Amino acid sequence: MNKTRKGFASDNNSGVHPLIMQSLISANQGHEVGYGDDYLTKQAISLFKKEFGEDIDVLFVFNGTGANVIALSCLVSSYQSVICADTAHLYVDECGAPEKQTGSKLLIVKNNNGKIEPEEIIKQLTGFGFQHHSQPGMISISQVTEMGTVYTLEEIRAITDLAHHYGLYVHMDGARLANAAVALNLPYKTFTRDAGIDVLSFGGTKNGMMIGESVLFFNPELSKNIKYIRKQTTQLYSKMRFISAQFIAYFENDLWKKNANNSNKMAKLLEKELSHIKEIKIAYPVESNAVFAILPKRIISELQKKSFFYVWDESTSIVRWMASFDTKEEDIHNFVKIIKKCLDLKL
Amino acid sequence: MNKTRKGFASDNNSGVHPLIMQSLISANQGHEVGYGDDYLTKQAISLFKKEFGEDIDVLFVFNGTGANVIALSCLVSSYQSVICADTAHLYVDECGAPEKQTGSKLLIVKNNNGKIEPEEIIKQLTGFGFQHHSQPGMISISQVTEMGTVYTLEEIRAITDLAHHYGLYVHMDGARLANAAVALNLPYKTFTRDAGIDVLSFGGTKNGMMIGESVLFFNPELSKNIKYIRKQTTQLYSKMRFISAQFIAYFENDLWKKNANNSNKMAKLLEKELSHIKEIKIAYPVESNAVFAILPKRIISELQKKSFFYVWDESTSIVRWMASFDTKEEDIHNFVKIIKKCLDLKL
Amino acid sequence: MNKTRKGFASDNNSGVHPLIMQSLISANQGHEVGYGDDYLTKQAISLFKKEFGEDIDVLFVFNGTGANVIALSCLVSSYQSVICADTAHLYVDECGAPEKQTGSKLLIVKNNNGKIEPEEIIKQLTGFGFQHHSQPGMISISQVTEMGTVYTLEEIRAITDLAHHYGLYVHMDGARLANAAVALNLPYKTFTRDAGIDVLSFGGTKNGMMIGESVLFFNPELSKNIKYIRKQTTQLYSKMRFISAQFIAYFENDLWKKNANNSNKMAKLLEKELSHIKEIKIAYPVESNAVFAILPKRIISELQKKSFFYVWDESTSIVRWMASFDTKEEDIHNFVKIIKKCLDLKL
Amino acid sequence: MNKTRKGFASDNNSGVHPLIMQSLISANQGHEVGYGDDYLTKQAISLFKKEFGEDIDVLFVFNGTGANVIALSCLVSSYQSVICADTAHLYVDECGAPEKQTGSKLLIVKNNNGKIEPEEIIKQLTGFGFQHHSQPGMISISQVTEMGTVYTLEEIRAITDLAHHYGLYVHMDGARLANAAVALNLPYKTFTRDAGIDVLSFGGTKNGMMIGESVLFFNPELSKNIKYIRKQTTQLYSKMRFISAQFIAYFENDLWKKNANNSNKMAKLLEKELSHIKEIKIAYPVESNAVFAILPKRIISELQKKSFFYVWDESTSIVRWMASFDTKEEDIHNFVKIIKKCLDLKL
Repeated sequence: MNKTRKGFASDNNSGVHPLIMQSLISANQGHEVGYGDDYLTKQAISLFKKEFGEDIDVLFVFNGTGANVIALSCLVSSYQSVICADTAHLYVDECGAPEKQTGSKLLIVKNNNGKIEPEEIIKQLTGFGFQHHSQPGMISISQVTEMGTVYTLEEIRAITDLAHHYGLYVHMDGARLANAAVALNLPYKTFTRDAGIDVLSFGGTKNGMMIGESVLFFNPELSKNIKYIRKQTTQLYSKMRFISAQFIAYFENDLWKKNANNSNKMAKLLEKELSHIKEIKIAYPVESNAVFAILPKRIISELQKKSFFYVWDESTSIVRWMASFDTKEEDIHNFVKIIKKCLDLKL
Repeated sequence: MNKTRKGFASDNNSGVHPLIMQSLISANQGHEVGYGDDYLTKQAISLFKKEFGEDIDVLFVFNGTGANVIALSCLVSSYQSVICADTAHLYVDECGAPEKQTGSKLLIVKNNNGKIEPEEIIKQLTGFGFQHHSQPGMISISQVTEMGTVYTLEEIRAITDLAHHYGLYVHMDGARLANAAVALNLPYKTFTRDAGIDVLSFGGTKNGMMIGESVLFFNPELSKNIKYIRKQTTQLYSKMRFISAQFIAYFENDLWKKNANNSNKMAKLLEKELSHIKEIKIAYPVESNAVFAILPKRIISELQKKSFFYVWDESTSIVRWMASFDTKEEDIHNFVKIIKKCLDLKL
Repeated sequence: MNKTRKGFASDNNSGVHPLIMQSLISANQGHEVGYGDDYLTKQAISLFKKEFGEDIDVLFVFNGTGANVIALSCLVSSYQSVICADTAHLYVDECGAPEKQTGSKLLIVKNNNGKIEPEEIIKQLTGFGFQHHSQPGMISISQVTEMGTVYTLEEIRAITDLAHHYGLYVHMDGARLANAAVALNLPYKTFTRDAGIDVLSFGGTKNGMMIGESVLFFNPELSKNIKYIRKQTTQLYSKMRFISAQFIAYFENDLWKKNANNSNKMAKLLEKELSHIKEIKIAYPVESNAVFAILPKRIISELQKKSFFYVWDESTSIVRWMASFDTKEEDIHNFVKIIKKCLDLKL
Repeated sequence: MNKTRKGFASDNNSGVHPLIMQSLISANQGHEVGYGDDYLTKQAISLFKKEFGEDIDVLFVFNGTGANVIALSCLVSSYQSVICADTAHLYVDECGAPEKQTGSKLLIVKNNNGKIEPEEIIKQLTGFGFQHHSQPGMISISQVTEMGTVYTLEEIRAITDLAHHYGLYVHMDGARLANAAVALNLPYKTFTRDAGIDVLSFGGTKNGMMIGESVLFFNPELSKNIKYIRKQTTQLYSKMRFISAQFIAYFENDLWKKNANNSNKMAKLLEKELSHIKEIKIAYPVESNAVFAILPKRIISELQKKSFFYVWDESTSIVRWMASFDTKEEDIHNFVKIIKKCLDLKL
């Protein structure tokens, strides 16, 4: 294997940023009390509070599915429904973990480039008080979306306003929240907490961390018993300092921003380079670190052999390419060369 | 904080062995496909197969509660019961995760120094075929036990024979399996698979790894759908290579054995040193890396301030001290000095 | 209240057929062993076996949601998905009981007059072997459908063939199975078991019984542990003879057929009478005891006051009228008169 | 079969009181709106409110397991534990329905003649705030107990005081509450609501009803969403009037009291008659309609053949005999004759 190989299959195929690794090494000194009562975890939490406000609750967990499941467990009872996009990670890609762990019904809304909109959401806001129906309990949106698009502040506010008007909570799945922050050029707090989000899954793993996500509660009514829920969801880490140390490096010197800035920029560069290839169309607006392209079917499997990636939709030949924190301009240019070779274009 | 401080509160308060850390650094090269399809995971699995046989299935997971819950999910249906010691980690220390995740009833058996025995287990083997009763479905034993004792081969075989005679499966919670292997001076396979265990939780985190446990299935009938169960239990890791790399280092050069050997030896040394202090009694046989001692109540809180540890049983003043892979003889001697000082003994 | 009032709101608003009531009275003699070990339950089960074959398993339960949940619990694991119509009772009208009780994901298929068809179902048969996706496990169809339509033998066979080809089971929700049998003029067995159905919810309550549904298992692999699942689903009745006695009367002298025949006929009569009113359109084919009509919006609430019924779809002014076992021709004529009066037609 | 045969196996082996049956027949007039919006249900609820106070919430359900599961679902979250007697019906006889439906851990307390006492309960009130432990959430007691004994007002108050002091709720499983009321000679309200009970399972089936139990909520904070929980637990009855009609007859003319008075009296008579047989010992105080007796092992199976009953404890030869609402003095005398015959005593 070529150890320095880089691809576009997923931002979780990339490794660990050197500063994150360095922080892990530094944290590996002596003994520390486990399960989050250590000084590194306190420090990491204080960095989150600096971004989102002092009066929040923060839980560190292993992965995105864990973060989402804990968020849902705190927001809904089993007789309530969760409204999300038909493309939402928690609906499509978590093997039914949300249903299994909460007992709740997931109701889907047709997406528009990965986003959901009030006029479609409202169709699911029915049956209130009717005992035969799951009671609408929350709306979950992904920022960035599974199509790599980014909700604007106004779009988020429209959804949280609708939700709160009907008495629902709003969850944001922020597995790639850093990419959204960079794209919007806004502080985290502005387009999450201040925009009406109640609970946030905040990702680290896809943006240069080795392992670690967090769940942030902006509504104290929802966070009273979260530590028991984390434990019961099997998401409590004994040697917690090793997640905390990563988050410390992630926030220090704005590493999160540098990483996300790079992957967003590289996606833009890829989009630009592809725009010169008339046989390839861009499927969705490129707003973060994802490029969805419509490829000629004939080249897909050959190209996958040369640099693996996922076909997003077989029927429409839409493929997904993700840029990572460590993607370099030359990686883009090399990849475009390979694509062109596959297309039999003269180089 | 003194960064080189070491204590006896728990073996998960220790950090990461340097060879494990080195393996993480080495694994951090280029991009790798996620979720376990990478070459490091294949290599790590092959090392497990070398220990336990080719025809097993292995799942890597985040933590011990996750491992146990997945094991149970594969072994029992919700209308079946799980029989375990009244001190079992999965009964006492997992915040009800087993009940929540499986819907099963846990039936407890009075422990004898942490172990359960056929004559007590058999009292729970009732109600077969009676529709009002949870049907006995499996027995779970911890090796080493929560009291630090170690089942002998004969004791394990007596339980698996009983279980299989009644049509039950047997799970072993091996969060500290390495310490048991060293204590028994037996290959892993001999006192697990060959002794009739059906599914095994195999721990790494408490013996020098940063993060990582595994679940091993010795019965192919039970492992058909484990990957979906892992995902639904929120225990699938995207950047899997970073758990796999640790297991590779763990097995290479018998690091697991060196680490467990050290912590077992240090516990023995602590026991020996304590034997000279007549005000302190050893509560359970010291067979692995745990020392349970009965302290004079008057010194407990002062001693905790000097070097934190957990009181196991308030009413009997039993405390738990755990030796770790990185515990050194001088750590023991220093700790014993502190104890003696607390006891106002002349040094 | 007018005690002899009859309406068209639902077939479960009707009462108990006199022969059913008589059977309850007859069963009320002396003491009987509980939970289904009595002679009346044995007799009732033998009547089911006469219809469906000796080698089936039969469970009596309280209600349709209970029957469906038990059926699903036996057919799928929590990491599997259940495919059904977007109008299916178990998706829309059971307050999320299927998700809560099984942990499974429900995947919906757009209905065509209440039915689902292979070309739409197949779109949900994806992700096999992909650990991030709920694995398709079963298809559930309602016979008669929630729109009152009836699957033909060929339509059922097309679905069961598709399902079995992909390794899925098929459940039929037969809350109104008697109406389907009368409509198809086929023995129960022909369009259920012989048509490839694996598990059947068989209704009694909507067709003249006081209380009682059953779950029939045609696949012995699926019925091994049903009695524990029934108990754990809270659906085991202590004084079972009083459900069994009803089923005995239900099968004796083909009471089920007479009742369903009447309600189907009355629905047809209502359809015919409505066909003379040009302001009212029939929304779906009238094939059983349901008539769905598109009413002028202006008369709905007034008509509801005179004889309560449910609006099925507010946006399209579709209302649902159900005929019952005890609906008489004069009830239809009276109701049509009321409708006409509301429409201000000359009588 | 002898249709007028009566036995002592269980009070749910008896049938339906004639006044209950008459009420069912009277309710079977015309159509009624389903699911509890009918006038009979309103009337039945008002009878409960007359007994327990206007400001309560009442749910009608099918069976005792359903009532208990709904009560628990309202009182505890999955990370909380339920404390009950080791003999509690919900621990022993519901096939794990409580664990499956709530995800909660059940913690058992050694019983004293079926009752639990504060000094034993308090041992389970540990681990508050410790994230590894299920958090104590409620205490459940059975009134009358599974041994037929009856908690005094003081005993109940001691438990509810303890529970509320620690922030726990108290559930009472009143499957045989009428027998307790008669035994205590107290109004229902006095030894339930006024004694600090938060939620009550109130039984009807074992005391002369055909089918029907209810769940009563004395704490409005707990009853906000009970109708959805009932539906999701599969316990919502469509033709609700037929449970309601039974409760109306049950309260009218104090039928519940007459029935329970009879069965309690008959148990006392049986106890008295047995007191003359020196080979038989009474195992627990006879305080309601149950008589637990220690039989010579040699006669058990012969006696069971003549009049079936359950052996409660094989090892101690304790058997259980239940008197019913329809047990007559001559039934007792005949049964005692049979016993004596089995014992080879001269008659």
